Amino acid sequence: MKAAYYEGNQRIRVGECVPSAPGPREVRLHVAYCGVCGTDLHIFSGHMDPRIRMPQVIGHEMSGTIAEIGPEVEGWSVGDRVVVRPLEPCGHCPACLKGHSHICQNLNFIGIDSPGAFQSAWTVPAHTLHRLPDGLSLEQAALVEPLAVACHDVRMGEVTPGEQVVVIGGGPIGTVVSLVAREVGARVLVSEVNPFRVEFARDLGLDVVNPQETDLVKRVEERTEGAGADAVFEVSGTQAGASVMTDLVRTRGRIIVVAIFAEAPRLDLFRFFWRELRLCGVRVYEPRDFDRAIELAAGGRLPLDRLITATRSLHELQGVFAEMKAGAEIMKVLIAPCHVGGNRPEAAGEGEG
Amino acid sequence: MKAAYYEGNQRIRVGECVPSAPGPREVRLHVAYCGVCGTDLHIFSGHMDPRIRMPQVIGHEMSGTIAEIGPEVEGWSVGDRVVVRPLEPCGHCPACLKGHSHICQNLNFIGIDSPGAFQSAWTVPAHTLHRLPDGLSLEQAALVEPLAVACHDVRMGEVTPGEQVVVIGGGPIGTVVSLVAREVGARVLVSEVNPFRVEFARDLGLDVVNPQETDLVKRVEERTEGAGADAVFEVSGTQAGASVMTDLVRTRGRIIVVAIFAEAPRLDLFRFFWRELRLCGVRVYEPRDFDRAIELAAGGRLPLDRLITATRSLHELQGVFAEMKAGAEIMKVLIAPCHVGGNRPEAAGEGEG
Repeated sequence: MKAAYYEGNQRIRVGECVPSAPGPREVRLHVAYCGVCGTDLHIFSGHMDPRIRMPQVIGHEMSGTIAEIGPEVEGWSVGDRVVVRPLEPCGHCPACLKGHSHICQNLNFIGIDSPGAFQSAWTVPAHTLHRLPDGLSLEQAALVEPLAVACHDVRMGEVTPGEQVVVIGGGPIGTVVSLVAREVGARVLVSEVNPFRVEFARDLGLDVVNPQETDLVKRVEERTEGAGADAVFEVSGTQAGASVMTDLVRTRGRIIVVAIFAEAPRLDLFRFFWRELRLCGVRVYEPRDFDRAIELAAGGRLPLDRLITATRSLHELQGVFAEMKAGAEIMKVLIAPCHVGGNRPEAAGEGEG
Repeated sequence: MKAAYYEGNQRIRVGECVPSAPGPREVRLHVAYCGVCGTDLHIFSGHMDPRIRMPQVIGHEMSGTIAEIGPEVEGWSVGDRVVVRPLEPCGHCPACLKGHSHICQNLNFIGIDSPGAFQSAWTVPAHTLHRLPDGLSLEQAALVEPLAVACHDVRMGEVTPGEQVVVIGGGPIGTVVSLVAREVGARVLVSEVNPFRVEFARDLGLDVVNPQETDLVKRVEERTEGAGADAVFEVSGTQAGASVMTDLVRTRGRIIVVAIFAEAPRLDLFRFFWRELRLCGVRVYEPRDFDRAIELAAGGRLPLDRLITATRSLHELQGVFAEMKAGAEIMKVLIAPCHVGGNRPEAAGEGEG
């Protein structure tokens, strides 16, 4: 049983996994797959060191099975196939008391603020579990967490059938936001500059514009007969995205800020006044977003297999981060902690069949 | 009968008013009072010259009586006491078709895009009229238009009783927003740096902080037990206001952008993500906001008389603008076009009793 430890300075060390026995209301999981997230890359790059207690196992986009059940856990059995909603709220801060515990002011984001899933054995609170339906493979289920992000974003954006939606940024999250908005019945246009991502989104049947080649504002005006889009999702985190988003949206339309902006961009507040625009920030997910993501994933209509660029072992995680930093043609890489290298399973019995 | 003509270059010329006979669905009004708005000052200062056809009568915060009724007007009589909602939408643009005709994409803002009320006789579409109850004086009724702005802002901000509200900016609009939010039952804190405005708001019984003397964020945290305000109204139009507003508002709280930002400020979009904040731009008003403003004004609970700094003649308008530019201690000046100078009424018969 192995674990990948982030040690700072863009270093990952693979060492022994030290399983912790589940305490009250906890379960120990066997991790089948854990996706590599942009947030993990931020951690690897050192941007989030103040939140990390090194050496630390990170990772939070997982799927797996229950290996051991602690006291006071009801409704779960060893062998149950699950995903984890990796949020542990405090329960008593103003956000929790208002019913917004997913963005608790003292949130423990499991896999960032406490140990994560790039390891064979992971012990988590039982309240974080969501059960997987039989038809959904553990490999596909590792995409439930980013899919839940998209379900949350689209729900918060109040997207309705037939609406015109623009998604600025066609990375992993922008792509799943686009797919979920399309499932709702929206007419989606993706704005993306990276040629790999442009082609990738086109291959998924999405309309895509490269704003460096095509006038995005004009294109949206044409699509909407001069009205502007009903909703714009900003997933690029760039000044260019923040600048153009206000030009794309109709009177009383919605802008949904999904991206994490490292710097405060300039924003055209006059346009907000002039068109009575609305903007909301969105973060992580609530339980119903996980339920919806599992339902969508199991429904078989989403091209989940195509989103998975590769499945790698823990030993390859450092290299995956290096590839991502170098801008490799990656949508989503899964890590299979039970694989010791290449694709050889170490403990196939508990992994996916 | 006189009119004040804006001629560009910070010049107002008082000349003869040329009444235009009301066409179909129009009425001619006798203007009793017309308040001087910040927008009028912008026009006077030349900031809006591209929208103005000089020489042009401006002014839109009026009260008066019906003097003549055109064809196809029903439900109105000569002598009726009215205010005007100075918006003429096109009826066929995407905004109008979505039901947002108050921010029509081809809006004729009467008094900006077409002649206004700084004149004795004013001809307007009958659909712009709102009837005044007997108990409301024409002088007070000249405040209905800015009060309707505040009613719109507070309604769009979804303020509910008991909520913690911060209003950044204690000028004329910030003050009426504060008063209307207080009427809803909110607990209002005003942030203002101008000593006259600070004292003015305090005299109205509002809690006021000068953020140059007191830590505004800390003060709001204390008032809200660490949660942050439920709603923040940005009425200052400054980078300082745009910077602090995101620090003041609670998880999932609302920011309402009332101010007209001449430049795009930097905005902390990370905070929007982190706390799932919401922001909406608000502009002018809808008919129900005028109805509510008239109801509030007639209710007698608002200190309207104290908001009126002075009543002046058309000949004094140029001087009023100069005083406003110089930062004089003015909350609201009314112009009485029927007064020829000082306080002598020219046509008292049609003016206020």
